[in-house]
Amino acid sequence: MPEFKPPLRDMRFVLHEVFGAPALWARLPALAETVDANTADAILEEAAKVTGQLIAPLNRSGDEEGAQWHDGKVSTPYGFKSAYTTYSEGGWVGLSGNAQFGGMGMPKMLAVQFEEMLYGANSSFALYSALSSGACLAIDAHASDALKNRYLPPMYEGRWAGSMCLTEAHAGTDLGIIRTRAEPQTDGSYNISGSKIFITGGDQDLTENIIHLVLAKLPDAPVGPKGISLFLVPKVLVNTDGSLAGSNAVSCGSIEHKMGIKASATCVMNFDGASGWLIGEPNKGLAAMFTMMNYERLSIGIQGIGCAEASYQSAVAYARERTQSRAPTGAIAKDKLADPIIVHPDVRRMLLTMKAMTEGGRAFASYVGQQLDLAKFSHDPDEQQAAQNLVALLTPVAKAFFTDTGLESCINGQQVFGGHGYIREWGQEQLVRDVRIAQIYEGTNGIQALDLLGRKVIANGGVALRQFTAEIRSFADQQETTHSAQLLRAVQRLENLSDWLQEQAKTNPNEVGAASVEYLHLFGYVAYAYLWARMAYVAESKLAEDQAFYGAKIATAQFYFSRLLPRIWSLEQSIRAGSESLYGLNAEQF
Amino acid sequence: MPEFKPPLRDMRFVLHEVFGAPALWARLPALAETVDANTADAILEEAAKVTGQLIAPLNRSGDEEGAQWHDGKVSTPYGFKSAYTTYSEGGWVGLSGNAQFGGMGMPKMLAVQFEEMLYGANSSFALYSALSSGACLAIDAHASDALKNRYLPPMYEGRWAGSMCLTEAHAGTDLGIIRTRAEPQTDGSYNISGSKIFITGGDQDLTENIIHLVLAKLPDAPVGPKGISLFLVPKVLVNTDGSLAGSNAVSCGSIEHKMGIKASATCVMNFDGASGWLIGEPNKGLAAMFTMMNYERLSIGIQGIGCAEASYQSAVAYARERTQSRAPTGAIAKDKLADPIIVHPDVRRMLLTMKAMTEGGRAFASYVGQQLDLAKFSHDPDEQQAAQNLVALLTPVAKAFFTDTGLESCINGQQVFGGHGYIREWGQEQLVRDVRIAQIYEGTNGIQALDLLGRKVIANGGVALRQFTAEIRSFADQQETTHSAQLLRAVQRLENLSDWLQEQAKTNPNEVGAASVEYLHLFGYVAYAYLWARMAYVAESKLAEDQAFYGAKIATAQFYFSRLLPRIWSLEQSIRAGSESLYGLNAEQF
Repeated sequence: MPEFKPPLRDMRFVLHEVFGAPALWARLPALAETVDANTADAILEEAAKVTGQLIAPLNRSGDEEGAQWHDGKVSTPYGFKSAYTTYSEGGWVGLSGNAQFGGMGMPKMLAVQFEEMLYGANSSFALYSALSSGACLAIDAHASDALKNRYLPPMYEGRWAGSMCLTEAHAGTDLGIIRTRAEPQTDGSYNISGSKIFITGGDQDLTENIIHLVLAKLPDAPVGPKGISLFLVPKVLVNTDGSLAGSNAVSCGSIEHKMGIKASATCVMNFDGASGWLIGEPNKGLAAMFTMMNYERLSIGIQGIGCAEASYQSAVAYARERTQSRAPTGAIAKDKLADPIIVHPDVRRMLLTMKAMTEGGRAFASYVGQQLDLAKFSHDPDEQQAAQNLVALLTPVAKAFFTDTGLESCINGQQVFGGHGYIREWGQEQLVRDVRIAQIYEGTNGIQALDLLGRKVIANGGVALRQFTAEIRSFADQQETTHSAQLLRAVQRLENLSDWLQEQAKTNPNEVGAASVEYLHLFGYVAYAYLWARMAYVAESKLAEDQAFYGAKIATAQFYFSRLLPRIWSLEQSIRAGSESLYGLNAEQF
Repeated sequence: MPEFKPPLRDMRFVLHEVFGAPALWARLPALAETVDANTADAILEEAAKVTGQLIAPLNRSGDEEGAQWHDGKVSTPYGFKSAYTTYSEGGWVGLSGNAQFGGMGMPKMLAVQFEEMLYGANSSFALYSALSSGACLAIDAHASDALKNRYLPPMYEGRWAGSMCLTEAHAGTDLGIIRTRAEPQTDGSYNISGSKIFITGGDQDLTENIIHLVLAKLPDAPVGPKGISLFLVPKVLVNTDGSLAGSNAVSCGSIEHKMGIKASATCVMNFDGASGWLIGEPNKGLAAMFTMMNYERLSIGIQGIGCAEASYQSAVAYARERTQSRAPTGAIAKDKLADPIIVHPDVRRMLLTMKAMTEGGRAFASYVGQQLDLAKFSHDPDEQQAAQNLVALLTPVAKAFFTDTGLESCINGQQVFGGHGYIREWGQEQLVRDVRIAQIYEGTNGIQALDLLGRKVIANGGVALRQFTAEIRSFADQQETTHSAQLLRAVQRLENLSDWLQEQAKTNPNEVGAASVEYLHLFGYVAYAYLWARMAYVAESKLAEDQAFYGAKIATAQFYFSRLLPRIWSLEQSIRAGSESLYGLNAEQF
């Protein structure tokens, strides 16, 4: 496995050249003081060093060793603790955290690049801080000032970590039926009792404390999802001055043995009358938790891009070096017995598919980051609302499309290696195993698709969708680009199909779930077409400055429109076939 | 993981009802005496016991323990040796072997069902005998009578195993550049020297001897693939009376650490002047080896179906049991807090995709088996030639399409399990890891696709393709079925596209490789459409006899035509976009 090199040139292209991020930052007061182009570049370079040189080298050894559980305690693989300390001291956990409590206050557009590097370097390692960042976000948004003051600073510092405790053995997607209970105490705290499973970083030896965000039910709670509350439950109790007191009644019962992300501890967490503090309002815990969940969903989506980028780098290096057979058009490396396999059209097809989807994903993630920044920092209520609409619409697409195509990319990267792709030491197979979880956790991709089509498109009558497609049309109309006509046709199809589904859903509730996954994919391909058209437009105008880089952008856009965007036609046909053929068998006939 | 139950009912449906195998056997003299419907059913039932009860229970423990290498010797996981002995004593290794040398002489159509069961039960275990069966086939077809008499009987008995030694570290796809040498000895034997990698079952502790079929070059051999010869190289030398003599100079240098099929030893094999015997003619070894490779290609394809079937069974059982959320149309299991997830449209979409592809694959594999039987046993030269044409055409499709869709199925099966799909104890993740190799070994699926489009379609001017499409047209024209019109449209597209590619290839040699993988997929979907139309036709005529079984067939066919066959339209568009966009970047620009 060659060294992982964060794709800085491409990140700068997306940030500065495609989205003009520095100009945006300059006009948003909260960011104008914090960041400009130079600061951003310096941060990205430093991030590339930390992730590429400190964290990436622990990826394969971490997989081989795995997280270990003994007598209720988790130990992370060799090197993780030392690296996590260095990483924390660099301030990376609080990169986009609230500056009032010690965060760095950086824009999400920048944090998105950093997260991609981190997942590309080492997905297991990345998860420990991804959960912390998300927990901080929920605490910052919903907890009392007292809780914020006590918990956020050490969490941003990375001395304490966070976890997200939702799932129970019988309740994953369906959180309305959780059984964990919260009994109010006279001092205003709550006694939390119950067992949670699949808790990423539920225990570890990296930080002094772990702050669990736990969904539980109050004694008088209504049944279902409207009767869930959110609690902050520290592993180690905290004195009012912030110093550590004794252990809380929280224990890690075991960890899971998994297909991948083996260095990430996936814990069974037992709460046996543990002390907890309410975050936000009683029975409105799910909404508060969604602050964290939406953060994690985008983050996990980015795991898909990061793994795909790592797989791509490795596959390209291999395809340039490995010689096998001759190019169809005749020998190229005449001094050798065979040509490097990058000459073969099918190897190029695999590599270009990876490249187009990974760079498209990077641009899409940055676009969502931009909307998150606008939603958070803009002072214009209309702009803020518009950005919020797009964030809600695009988050499930990011989570599911980045990871579904991330798996496809890693499978392609492994395939480029032939037999060596199946051997552990080459690293490709680990990426396949590691990226696979991203389609499952944080709400399976099927759930993301239901969220997109059911809640984010149909439930609001397509308002957010129209906002997005209007933006695409406006771009395609104003900038006459090579791909405008094809982009407009694709957008038209997406709109027509969405209208059709809106009608279908009125008469048959099964139609949404029958169409949702394929609809999300179709949506993703159209969104990437928009971003590739924008990237190609910029690249065409700057081609003379750097033929190699911009020429590659233009060529990859061409490949995307020629060979990948056509996937939407089959998706549409399958969707339009409707739900009927899904219900021709009863459960016993399967 | 629930018990694996070989799908006997469906296998009987395919054999007896769709293809009328017993009638075919009755008219082929070599088979008429050997097998009839009752014998076949008895064999399948016995096979189901051996694979389901003896071999399947060793699948997960074998994965956890893995094959081990110490001091040059491989040990297989606990239970493998005892099971292999029982399995061999049942005659299963020689199921379709030549009766003249102790094989059972059963038709390939039957062997195909058995192989599927074996891979579904335990892919690692299956490989040990799959390589033996293939080696026997090559020896039977190309070796001298002396070699056949000495080696085949103990191999069919399973006392000795076989291996296939092609790949070297620098030569996988490109066998023309192998370095292993064969020096003629005065006694007519050869001294073989060289190192081979990725040798499945190169060493093991299951059998008394291992008969390696080794590709090597004679001193005066022409360069390239026309200078390769095939040698039989036993692990233990064999006396003329068949008894074992001393060790040969063959050693296992190490085994690979892999993503999956961990109980299968993947060996580095060193030949240090080992004694070997020529099989077939000098410099024509690759053609002789292709007898074994074609066998293995179909067999490995069937691994895709077997793994997909195991994943499907497990996913259906889970989807019936696991309760989560309510059906979109309202609560169904009102006595429970949630409905079984099989009510959800997207879960049904995943399960039906698996079912349609697995049963379609089973029918396709049986169809290829039928052609192999005709090619081997028919006395009518035209019929034999026609069958040979189809075998050549369809083998690469079987290998690649079964395994590409096999991975898709296993990914779907894992996804149905949600988070539990990622946990080792549930078994789904092992199937994903195990099936993944099948897209890579025995010639990557990219190589299969080049073989299909380049050699089997374009090089012969589409003759074999026309034979196949004519058969499909004839079926669709004669039997007015629900799906005839759609089938005919799909076939027409395949023909037009093939003609177009034939033209493209004349002017640009890159067009074949640019189209090949997507072409193979398109071909596969059209072939499955043919088989689903045939299955639906039979099921419609017998619906009254068994509403549950035949009703499910009809419904699954409907699903296939509505929701899966449309995949061909995007494939076609991508293919027609041509190779140009693959060559817009030079190697450094990737």
